[in-house]
Amino acid sequence: MYLTKDVPNEEYEPYNEPGFEGVLRRKLLNPENSSKQFALRTYIIDPNGHTALDRHSHEHGVYILSGELDVRVGDRQAIVRTGDVLHIASDEPHQFINRANEYAKFLCVRDFA
Amino acid sequence: MYLTKDVPNEEYEPYNEPGFEGVLRRKLLNPENSSKQFALRTYIIDPNGHTALDRHSHEHGVYILSGELDVRVGDRQAIVRTGDVLHIASDEPHQFINRANEYAKFLCVRDFA
Repeated sequence: MYLTKDVPNEEYEPYNEPGFEGVLRRKLLNPENSSKQFALRTYIIDPNGHTALDRHSHEHGVYILSGELDVRVGDRQAIVRTGDVLHIASDEPHQFINRANEYAKFLCVRDFA
Repeated sequence: MYLTKDVPNEEYEPYNEPGFEGVLRRKLLNPENSSKQFALRTYIIDPNGHTALDRHSHEHGVYILSGELDVRVGDRQAIVRTGDVLHIASDEPHQFINRANEYAKFLCVRDFA
């Protein structure tokens, strides 16, 4: 068993990769500390923040913990809110944009298959 | 993109497998609807409820969404609460027991590698 914990927003680290704006991330489970087949992370996106338009071979599972996000996957678009869950398949281009007035937070799984 | 959502506790389905007591489950992402390499589910455990003492080759990643649980993994034991995260490795025996006065809810990932 490996134990870790989420932390208050103020303790999150900025995720300063190209194309990301106003995004914070916390790495929870990954092969460096525990899990072999998947990684589990939480992301916070500030109002007006967004992730890069990303595309890769691994899948994503996303559970919205709080807030509201505009998500674009391929040529589809949706508004997702607390309790919504989405799957992004291998090679689907995807981007999260926060157009609301409060921060949004989600849990994200990726596989290592 | 596949979209689904969590629901209020009253809409959860009982998880009546042998050894489980007072456990409800909602299947979110899995190979039948979307994800190939992992499944994502939420579980609710009522006060005095518990999962079976389980052991299997797949890994688990668990994020506690609310409440407090006594978790036993191998010969270790821990109390986990909202925001705590744990990893259960392949073949580690594990059991969740709710000894608190309120329900506990967690998000659970399993791999299909």
